[in-house]
Amino acid sequence: MPGLESYDKTLLYSYALGIFPATECLKKAAGRCLRLLVSSDSGESKGVAALRAAAEAEGIRCETADRLLRRLSGKGNCHAAMVYRKQEGCLDPAQDHILLHHPTDAGNMGTILRTALGFGFRQIAVVRPAVDTDDPHTVRASMGACFSLQIAHYDTYAAYRAAFPNHAVYPFMLTGSSPLPSVATSRRNPATLVFGNEAAGLPEFFADEGTSVRIPHGDDIDSLNLAVAAAIGMYAFSMVSGGVL
Amino acid sequence: MPGLESYDKTLLYSYALGIFPATECLKKAAGRCLRLLVSSDSGESKGVAALRAAAEAEGIRCETADRLLRRLSGKGNCHAAMVYRKQEGCLDPAQDHILLHHPTDAGNMGTILRTALGFGFRQIAVVRPAVDTDDPHTVRASMGACFSLQIAHYDTYAAYRAAFPNHAVYPFMLTGSSPLPSVATSRRNPATLVFGNEAAGLPEFFADEGTSVRIPHGDDIDSLNLAVAAAIGMYAFSMVSGGVL
Repeated sequence: MPGLESYDKTLLYSYALGIFPATECLKKAAGRCLRLLVSSDSGESKGVAALRAAAEAEGIRCETADRLLRRLSGKGNCHAAMVYRKQEGCLDPAQDHILLHHPTDAGNMGTILRTALGFGFRQIAVVRPAVDTDDPHTVRASMGACFSLQIAHYDTYAAYRAAFPNHAVYPFMLTGSSPLPSVATSRRNPATLVFGNEAAGLPEFFADEGTSVRIPHGDDIDSLNLAVAAAIGMYAFSMVSGGVL
Repeated sequence: MPGLESYDKTLLYSYALGIFPATECLKKAAGRCLRLLVSSDSGESKGVAALRAAAEAEGIRCETADRLLRRLSGKGNCHAAMVYRKQEGCLDPAQDHILLHHPTDAGNMGTILRTALGFGFRQIAVVRPAVDTDDPHTVRASMGACFSLQIAHYDTYAAYRAAFPNHAVYPFMLTGSSPLPSVATSRRNPATLVFGNEAAGLPEFFADEGTSVRIPHGDDIDSLNLAVAAAIGMYAFSMVSGGVL
């Protein structure tokens, strides 16, 4: 690996910025960790010291990289980052899936990944074009949850569907035919919960895919925030599945 | 009103940035609208034209303010903003309340306000210190939902409680005694749903306030994002209240 660069989606590695995400990266994906970066003024931090010790125990080199850390973290001060190798995920056909169709916002994506892990959804399908799930902003917003998930990418929904023809599909749409509370209690297994783009939602053809779902809310708002809608959907589906809970 | 300034929380006015939030401000709080700002290159925009016409119909002056709009919106291009007078809200003692204790993030705050309006919670209590609910980032993240809500501020939880002693209080805590699904179905009216700070959560004393609530999730994550937790709580409580839905 030559000198490290500012993040770019074409790179084969990315950065888990911050002590918590970097620690998650090491705990859940040690085999993908390439190098630990720390700031020269991080000597006082117990979190960084523990992270250094854990990295050394795994044989991962640690180096000081003030300038790169500053560039990567922008305004937010950041005293540590794990450099890690990207890896395409592999979805389990027996498990529930979350499918994100053309998501664009790194913060939303990270929040959705964190929520998914919390509710036991570990299989994530992303249909491109989509925000980079390895973007350092996504990784940070996920609090490192991405390292505990399988995240697989598809060029079209049809390509995803061809790979997993047996999932019961639940597209979340403003015009969904069935209200979430009743859909959740009658859900089939395994399920794919489908969420659309922040601004445009899902294309109309999803209305004929499986059982389209509406989250009941008043008409004082146009729609819920994407990460909020996904969280409510995952909560409702997980409360009846008896999975992690 | 002298020359307009960059936003500062000590100002008596603030800015609803973007066509959608500015339009909401005009529709829901016309009496508080002071001036409409537009960019000189917004002539082509149908949204801006409609907003101008609506503002003129209300007798609200419109002026070009490229530099101020650029300064207010940062990187995000913004072609319109409504200058509005701030106003402390007044909570209805007969309605459900959402209480936010020491929230710090403008994006979370805005998202929570948008979700609250969607699920019919129009009474918001904020216990200081707290992010400014009139900060342009909050207003924008709320998509203008803040103009349809009553938002009242308190220096302490005790001061809020003294004003509303009859609400059934439901503090959301990682260590909450009762799981959300069962709490929601046995909820009392009117209710106050209480959510804590992004990093610290709620102080321990809330465990003895009313019925503390736990959102069941796996231990792979430390906690849910605040806006996500609040959304799930509001969804679960509103699905059984038969309010807006």
